Amino acid sequence: MAPSSTSVLLILLLSVVPASLASTPVSDGLELELGGDGLYREILRDETVLRLKELGKISDGEGFLERTFLSPASFRATDVIISWMKDAGLTTWVDQMGNIHGRFEPSNSTDKALLIGSHMDTVIDAGMYDGALGIICAISALKVLRVTGKLQRLTRPVEVIAFSDEEGVRFQTTFLGSAAVAGILPESILQVSDKSLYVAFNFSSGTTVQEVLRLNSFEASADALGQVKYSPESVGSYVEVHLEQGPVLEALRYPLGVVKGIAGQTRLKVIVDGSQGHAGTVPMKLRRDPMVAAAELVVTLEGLCKDPSRFLTYDEECGCFTEESLAGLVCTVGELLTWPSASNVIPGQVNFTVDIRAMDDLVRETIVASFSRIVMQRCDHRLVDCAVEHKLSRELHAFF
Amino acid sequence: MAPSSTSVLLILLLSVVPASLASTPVSDGLELELGGDGLYREILRDETVLRLKELGKISDGEGFLERTFLSPASFRATDVIISWMKDAGLTTWVDQMGNIHGRFEPSNSTDKALLIGSHMDTVIDAGMYDGALGIICAISALKVLRVTGKLQRLTRPVEVIAFSDEEGVRFQTTFLGSAAVAGILPESILQVSDKSLYVAFNFSSGTTVQEVLRLNSFEASADALGQVKYSPESVGSYVEVHLEQGPVLEALRYPLGVVKGIAGQTRLKVIVDGSQGHAGTVPMKLRRDPMVAAAELVVTLEGLCKDPSRFLTYDEECGCFTEESLAGLVCTVGELLTWPSASNVIPGQVNFTVDIRAMDDLVRETIVASFSRIVMQRCDHRLVDCAVEHKLSRELHAFF
Repeated sequence: MAPSSTSVLLILLLSVVPASLASTPVSDGLELELGGDGLYREILRDETVLRLKELGKISDGEGFLERTFLSPASFRATDVIISWMKDAGLTTWVDQMGNIHGRFEPSNSTDKALLIGSHMDTVIDAGMYDGALGIICAISALKVLRVTGKLQRLTRPVEVIAFSDEEGVRFQTTFLGSAAVAGILPESILQVSDKSLYVAFNFSSGTTVQEVLRLNSFEASADALGQVKYSPESVGSYVEVHLEQGPVLEALRYPLGVVKGIAGQTRLKVIVDGSQGHAGTVPMKLRRDPMVAAAELVVTLEGLCKDPSRFLTYDEECGCFTEESLAGLVCTVGELLTWPSASNVIPGQVNFTVDIRAMDDLVRETIVASFSRIVMQRCDHRLVDCAVEHKLSRELHAFF
Repeated sequence: MAPSSTSVLLILLLSVVPASLASTPVSDGLELELGGDGLYREILRDETVLRLKELGKISDGEGFLERTFLSPASFRATDVIISWMKDAGLTTWVDQMGNIHGRFEPSNSTDKALLIGSHMDTVIDAGMYDGALGIICAISALKVLRVTGKLQRLTRPVEVIAFSDEEGVRFQTTFLGSAAVAGILPESILQVSDKSLYVAFNFSSGTTVQEVLRLNSFEASADALGQVKYSPESVGSYVEVHLEQGPVLEALRYPLGVVKGIAGQTRLKVIVDGSQGHAGTVPMKLRRDPMVAAAELVVTLEGLCKDPSRFLTYDEECGCFTEESLAGLVCTVGELLTWPSASNVIPGQVNFTVDIRAMDDLVRETIVASFSRIVMQRCDHRLVDCAVEHKLSRELHAFF
């Protein structure tokens, strides 16, 4: 996927080059003809793939890829990405939220910039394409413009950004990097604490975004956050190459797809409190076991998303959900934590995360409401105490 | 519960004192009359309760009680228990598996010893009575014999043992302490590795029993293990006071119960391998989600133990299970681990523990076999790969 994505990005960049220059033979004798032999395979394919592999090895985990916001590995990755940006002829800097910028600024241009980017952080045990593809493809495409002598002739500013946080693994809050650039990151984010097993059970408050930033010599003030923002007037467009992260294109044998919109998303945390006890001595009928209650809710959530009409009440369904509006509905439990987590102890508390996404906000909100209602019903039935915390709610963002 | 348990133990100890001495007034003017005012409340109740509280505070965890085999807290506890044993007039030593012994040896006695003991290790987030009650009650009862001058007149050796491991939290293998004293701990135990999140996912081999013993200046050889063993000829009887750890006595308002037997126990580890994916992009119908598969199995296990006849085949049921044989059946999932454990990632692997106990070995074995069969059926149906590992199997041990 990588080389063809880079080629597509190069085509896009050529639209920024004045038409009269697009097919000019260049100094090193290579023709910039996509689809022919002058495909710059050594940059667009070979080097791109090598760099993906190199970045994919820069990890905080041993034997798997994990590179979270401002982690030790993220700083090693920053150095490498900066060197690649410089190699492509770009002017580089790191902003106050750890985003890496590489920009070509034509002299005397008043045009709005074309931004190209993706995220440099990863989930735990990530694939090497996630995020990295969009950063490296952008750099490779610009490098071809540099070696063919076209970069200097661009009339619009072009900038690659490697965003410091998209996944939200460390602070459980996504898009720290791009939200700062967009100017929509609230100042209160500085006080959010990072994640650990103990945080999940409220034993410790963790380290804040502000503390982590300051530990790494960032300013970490509301002012500094404000300086990261790009004014809408300075940006003409934004494009991101990303791997699909799903099996649909592969199943359909399509090499490339265009994103129609960003699904709306709700993140919940469900806390189930039961009665901790000895695995050998509490009869089944006297148990208030949060593990079984949580497991039942996980199974129910799957049913709710696979076949919503089985669970919705008459009022909720209201006849307004079509096959199409339900099609993109996905529900996931990615984390489940148990306390005290010993094989011979009936747990006292089980927490789990719920991620619900849909291409229809009404569908998503209805599913969230239904699930919350079901949680309360089932927990009442099992005599365990449940709470549903709303961690995040984002509406559908349609591009077309 | 503590004081009345100690009184009962004192009555038992008096059976070791020659009958002619049992009601002799003692030097400090107190009558040893149980049930009267001479109940030695300051030792059997007040000091016992104070010591339970003191030992309950010696923990490796902050804000909760956790004291595992040879942990830093276990050595602080060892010092305290030895001082209490000495205060009761006992000769003390620590054996090569970390068990603490406090013994009174009558001169010229050829009688077999009465052993009294319980375990000093705990589960994670344990109650302060678990194990500690049996150690402290024994010491308190012997202390009363000492202060009343009766200890020196015992004709049989009496020994209190605080066993270093019963729970098996650290090495996932129970009874390291008492099995060594009974001489049934295999030499291979020295190579067993301790537990961590990474061990669960086979990323690291952990530290072995041998390494932990040597780190703490124990010999950790097969010879040393052999020296811990007590020959059956040297032991007359063993008694242990333990809290119930279940709600039955309390519900029936019984102050004390006598253990009829130790339930047979099976421990399994179920490993569910699915297809890791992005929470937003893999359609529900294309998922091979090990979290939902595991959750379904957790719920099924509960059903199997609450109402076995619903799940058993005709062959398995064989008409031989009575209400009584099924009564003590309990099944528990105490640990469930998810990889990679991020809210926006469909897990790739989920592992969970299963603890099955019954007062009828045939019932237990049938339930284990049925559950293993169900695991394979459900996993096939969900297209996830499952394995059931047998970690431990112990038969019923009936006392009456």
